[in-house]
Amino acid sequence: MAIVGVIGGGQLARMMIPAAVALGIELRVLAEAPDASARLAATAVGDYRDSATVLAFAQGCDVITFDHEHVPQEVLRALVAAGAAVHPGPDALLYAQDKLAMRERLAGLGVPQPDWARVQSADQLAQFLADHGGRAVVKTARGGYDGKGVRVVDDAHAADDWLADGAVLVEELVRFERELAQLIARRPSGEARPWPLVETVQRDGVCAEVFAPAPRVSDAVQRAAVEIASMVAHGLGVTGVLAVEMFESTDGRVLVNELAMRPHNSGHLTIDGSMTSQFEQHLRAVLDWPLGDTTPLAEWAVMINVFGGLADEQIVAALGHQPSVKVHAYGKGARVGRKAGHVTAIGDDLDDAAYRARAAASHFD
Amino acid sequence: MAIVGVIGGGQLARMMIPAAVALGIELRVLAEAPDASARLAATAVGDYRDSATVLAFAQGCDVITFDHEHVPQEVLRALVAAGAAVHPGPDALLYAQDKLAMRERLAGLGVPQPDWARVQSADQLAQFLADHGGRAVVKTARGGYDGKGVRVVDDAHAADDWLADGAVLVEELVRFERELAQLIARRPSGEARPWPLVETVQRDGVCAEVFAPAPRVSDAVQRAAVEIASMVAHGLGVTGVLAVEMFESTDGRVLVNELAMRPHNSGHLTIDGSMTSQFEQHLRAVLDWPLGDTTPLAEWAVMINVFGGLADEQIVAALGHQPSVKVHAYGKGARVGRKAGHVTAIGDDLDDAAYRARAAASHFD
Repeated sequence: MAIVGVIGGGQLARMMIPAAVALGIELRVLAEAPDASARLAATAVGDYRDSATVLAFAQGCDVITFDHEHVPQEVLRALVAAGAAVHPGPDALLYAQDKLAMRERLAGLGVPQPDWARVQSADQLAQFLADHGGRAVVKTARGGYDGKGVRVVDDAHAADDWLADGAVLVEELVRFERELAQLIARRPSGEARPWPLVETVQRDGVCAEVFAPAPRVSDAVQRAAVEIASMVAHGLGVTGVLAVEMFESTDGRVLVNELAMRPHNSGHLTIDGSMTSQFEQHLRAVLDWPLGDTTPLAEWAVMINVFGGLADEQIVAALGHQPSVKVHAYGKGARVGRKAGHVTAIGDDLDDAAYRARAAASHFD
Repeated sequence: MAIVGVIGGGQLARMMIPAAVALGIELRVLAEAPDASARLAATAVGDYRDSATVLAFAQGCDVITFDHEHVPQEVLRALVAAGAAVHPGPDALLYAQDKLAMRERLAGLGVPQPDWARVQSADQLAQFLADHGGRAVVKTARGGYDGKGVRVVDDAHAADDWLADGAVLVEELVRFERELAQLIARRPSGEARPWPLVETVQRDGVCAEVFAPAPRVSDAVQRAAVEIASMVAHGLGVTGVLAVEMFESTDGRVLVNELAMRPHNSGHLTIDGSMTSQFEQHLRAVLDWPLGDTTPLAEWAVMINVFGGLADEQIVAALGHQPSVKVHAYGKGARVGRKAGHVTAIGDDLDDAAYRARAAASHFD
């Protein structure tokens, strides 16, 4: 029986449990706390930044993979040095950890991106602003997620606090028709399979809704998205699931926004809407097992995130109101603004699926 | 967070885990052994025939349900007396435990059955044989499953060993076109939802293949099957999933063969082929939560049981050969003839789905 170790006990590790149960894979989770979302599969509780903790956890696992990108490079390299099979490996994961490194690497691969620059001073930021209509996006190279570490600025001194800690990434403010995400899984021996391109809708920098396949998108954009994701997956040697977040700009370009090298919020609808979910595919990919068919189970799938919490009586109300909607609760304590679950509706009519998903989600407001 | 306790740690309890993870339900399993199929959710290991063990396990659970029908009535009644919510309850479960009681009760409800008799002696068996063309099926009232406790006989003394222990059930040997199974879930407050009727193919008295919906079956037979399952579910007060195994006889009758009051082998294909799986529905039903939509996800679903074991290299071969087939391994040690897993294929062509399922299953021979 194959044994997969997952560093991090959040909802992504939690949602790997059903896939592992089905395929007879033993999942072991290194959780941050005993009440972590993936606690059912936790075999250790400890700090993922501590090499000794992580090395001890990895003993006996066939493969090590991740719930998040925050494991430090020195810990990753200690794992590799100790002989662990780490997927994605540190050389790939670097580009999901450091946005400046990512921009430099993607430029080298010739992947279309927004205009960007490495900025080390307010003067350099002023120059970028002057060249880009007076507004831009500033991002810390490391540590940002869900809208954190990102600012839209029109003042060259608006990032002085971050610049005090070192270089930042500055990007053109892309005027976009919509945001897209292309998921693809790649196994170490090279096989890669994409899912259909999806549209994501963000609110306050956090994913709110996802539609699959992306509505009203041209064939050319779909082809470009798969080509970009394949270039990134193969070019960076990504193993497991890769999510490429993209803009479709108002002037018709497809531009890479962010990368994630793990199952991703934009792929949660594959649990109920795809022949192979991103969680099953991630496990297959990191084990270097053959990848599964990513054909959709219905014409359309719509996913809506639930924030705060999911009380039993809210779940009961949602299930009672919408018998065809699938509710996913992450088993976390309630906290304002926290991703606590999601709902998915599938069907042959987009508006109907969106209505049902929103109607179910409304019970969690 | 709702807590469901499951007595028994076999594959049925195991396959409840993914549904519980999705809905944020805490599943607690009383397993027979530490290496039980559902060990991931085991919170206790002990003997389900021991009231003290079962009562201690039930402490703190909102509902108690089952992986099998073998919990003795006195243990079930001790649970109820202690205030536990037991679903299905002992009054219903009796009819899945005792085949003579089942035949008597279904006769009282007017449900169509094969001719049958309670037989206490070889003379009585001789009379039944004489009245039914010289052949009949003899079943022990209790303890039979997967072909055990069942004999086709043409000799009045062929059940003497069983008769030494008490009365047996004798039934006409039904000449049938095919075997069918109608699954339905019912919650304590009365709501019930069936799945589409399926055809089951048995080999050596054990389920080998299942086809959904049952091919070549008339609307009248489909209606009769749902009507019978509803009569049984409501008439017997079944809560959770009820499986009614039936014969479609060569003379056009639909006759009840066996009952199971739990998720059932004939419903495993609902995991990958139905909007709501039997495992999710069972948890919803026993919690008295609203039931889910049972619409199929494709025109056809085909499930094939895997016996013996599923080695990783066999799983890899099956996945590589058939990327669209879903493989389910029960995490059991290999043993000849043991149900060790199943595969399911869905699609819009029955022959193609059956081909893919069989091709994947062939890797486990």
